[in-house]
Amino acid sequence: MKIICQKSDLVSAINIVMKAVPSKTTMSILECVLIDASSNEIKMTANDMELGIETKVTGTIVEKGIVAIDARVFSDIVRKLPENEITIDVASNFETLITCEKAKFSILGKSGEDFSYLPFVEKDRSVYLSQFTLREMIRQTIFSVADNDSNRLMTGELFEIHENELKIVALDGHRIAIRKVELKDSFGDIKVIVPGKTLNEISKILTGGIEDEVQISFTKNHIVFEFDETIVVSRLIEGEYFRIDQMLSSDYNTKVVINKRELLDCIDRATLLIKEGDKKPVILYINDKTMELKIQSFIGSMDEEIDIEKEGKDIVIGFNPKFLIDALRVIDDEQISMYLVNPKAPCFIRDDEGKYIYLVLPVQIVTVS
Amino acid sequence: MKIICQKSDLVSAINIVMKAVPSKTTMSILECVLIDASSNEIKMTANDMELGIETKVTGTIVEKGIVAIDARVFSDIVRKLPENEITIDVASNFETLITCEKAKFSILGKSGEDFSYLPFVEKDRSVYLSQFTLREMIRQTIFSVADNDSNRLMTGELFEIHENELKIVALDGHRIAIRKVELKDSFGDIKVIVPGKTLNEISKILTGGIEDEVQISFTKNHIVFEFDETIVVSRLIEGEYFRIDQMLSSDYNTKVVINKRELLDCIDRATLLIKEGDKKPVILYINDKTMELKIQSFIGSMDEEIDIEKEGKDIVIGFNPKFLIDALRVIDDEQISMYLVNPKAPCFIRDDEGKYIYLVLPVQIVTVS
Repeated sequence: MKIICQKSDLVSAINIVMKAVPSKTTMSILECVLIDASSNEIKMTANDMELGIETKVTGTIVEKGIVAIDARVFSDIVRKLPENEITIDVASNFETLITCEKAKFSILGKSGEDFSYLPFVEKDRSVYLSQFTLREMIRQTIFSVADNDSNRLMTGELFEIHENELKIVALDGHRIAIRKVELKDSFGDIKVIVPGKTLNEISKILTGGIEDEVQISFTKNHIVFEFDETIVVSRLIEGEYFRIDQMLSSDYNTKVVINKRELLDCIDRATLLIKEGDKKPVILYINDKTMELKIQSFIGSMDEEIDIEKEGKDIVIGFNPKFLIDALRVIDDEQISMYLVNPKAPCFIRDDEGKYIYLVLPVQIVTVS
Repeated sequence: MKIICQKSDLVSAINIVMKAVPSKTTMSILECVLIDASSNEIKMTANDMELGIETKVTGTIVEKGIVAIDARVFSDIVRKLPENEITIDVASNFETLITCEKAKFSILGKSGEDFSYLPFVEKDRSVYLSQFTLREMIRQTIFSVADNDSNRLMTGELFEIHENELKIVALDGHRIAIRKVELKDSFGDIKVIVPGKTLNEISKILTGGIEDEVQISFTKNHIVFEFDETIVVSRLIEGEYFRIDQMLSSDYNTKVVINKRELLDCIDRATLLIKEGDKKPVILYINDKTMELKIQSFIGSMDEEIDIEKEGKDIVIGFNPKFLIDALRVIDDEQISMYLVNPKAPCFIRDDEGKYIYLVLPVQIVTVS
């Protein structure tokens, strides 16, 4: 095999497929990127068996062929070469010569016969979304995915399509994040659980804007994202997702309208007084026109007042500050509405149009008033 | 004590004195910053007994007094407060109230009576240098300081003044870095060893340009840097520094003139093939018009050719690539001159004006030619 590509094209492609190269594995073939120039186009593929990514590379094929190369070594070499044409020349024993200007690297490749290609996926059902929207929806929910494996369902996000609405849900037992978006057309009902890791990686390579589309297809076991010159295939998480609707309620005893930035900055400051592992809650004293926030730890204490608009009863309620911060950070609205029932019931932050719902469970507090 | 300062002024001051707050200590008073508003100005001081820093803060003194506060907590709080006036109000029990707009923090301070003030230093001998020059000279030598304590002299840099020349020297047993600068006036002979840590911290707070001066004073046991509103006092390392002159020689058998950027990029690429802990040398084959660089490891091999101008004999010599990279990175010249004697003798990189000398010891190589 012999191909010639611009450095910048190789770097873009390897950056994309690297997202499917596992950092630790006992199978060295999984640490490889496959360069396939056996047909009339150059394709790069990486596949860790859960997540597979394939992307096309612009370049010239001088001699057809295939090679599997250690992805990290290849990526490091390409990145450090001068900004110019790079020639990749593979001998019959898979010794791979990478040359650029006067620099010559030689590394040993593999035949690629052990390499797992992406599964072939029959795309019977597809939806289209802007790359920007998908990236945003992932960012606005992914923090609520559980970060340990004790409940596998919680490590993924629900993708639910009903008619022309896509709903994405993440939850970890302490909070729920829900984002909804309207699709251009109506589709049949779809309900799948996509691994959080897949979504994290996808959101890093979805660099397109609001005009650039991503096609999402579903099969029994896989979800497929296609955009630009790239295909991402991921296994789904098996099982039935939690019944979210039962957890949501629109009843409330207190409604608070507050400036998001002021609330976020205030809670952010409060967390200064909490060292890692120390589970001090931030306590919200909600009165007629003000919310007073207090936190107390062995370092010291803080209190601060924020002007609010309030409907309903006064309430004193405590939260893990991190959970409030995570939700507030991804809401773009300047004013937000919080809905509260009592100090032991979940707090909802949601908009009137139903584009987002963030549920946060309170923590028990001992108040001396 | 009660003082009022702008947030930005407090942040600048705490950033400066934090450099003298140790990260780990058993004496909690060392982790404190002293805020001294007992006279007509506000001073902040930190002192880890090796290195002490004092700086003035602009602000209003409402009530005179002194307090010692945990430096990290204070720094975190001030940094997160809104950009506005901050009031620091200390009660007689040293409970310290820090308020800004509607945010109120309360932390417990200390009396400051255990705090070690900066040693009083009689400044009989001082030199003046631009802040920019001192910062550059530190950057251009500090990497050659030994990073472990096995030889205490090697953890510092020699500051040697002879007539109107300041020479700074760092060495670690494998290499030497020397920078010289001309002073405006002549001084008596001075020869002191300044801790590398002090110089690292100083170079971070010396933000001034070529027009801004720093005054450097010397006593038997201390070096004092004064600039802007800040005083830095550091202990010196006791002992007699290595005799550098014996190690320097101007004899050579081969002189190479080479483009610095090309050489640096090439060696930088070569290091890709070396994993941490793997001590593979980069081998330079110096011929009439070209230098060929080769490196070989279990990952693969690289070779590259660079055009050079050469005087004297051909030579094959091996180096630890890191040592060459460190020196090349801090030389600003486009073309550099390398002087070589034989494959076992040190290589010198130096300019004709004598502003810098970098000595790097070669490593033994087994060549198959």
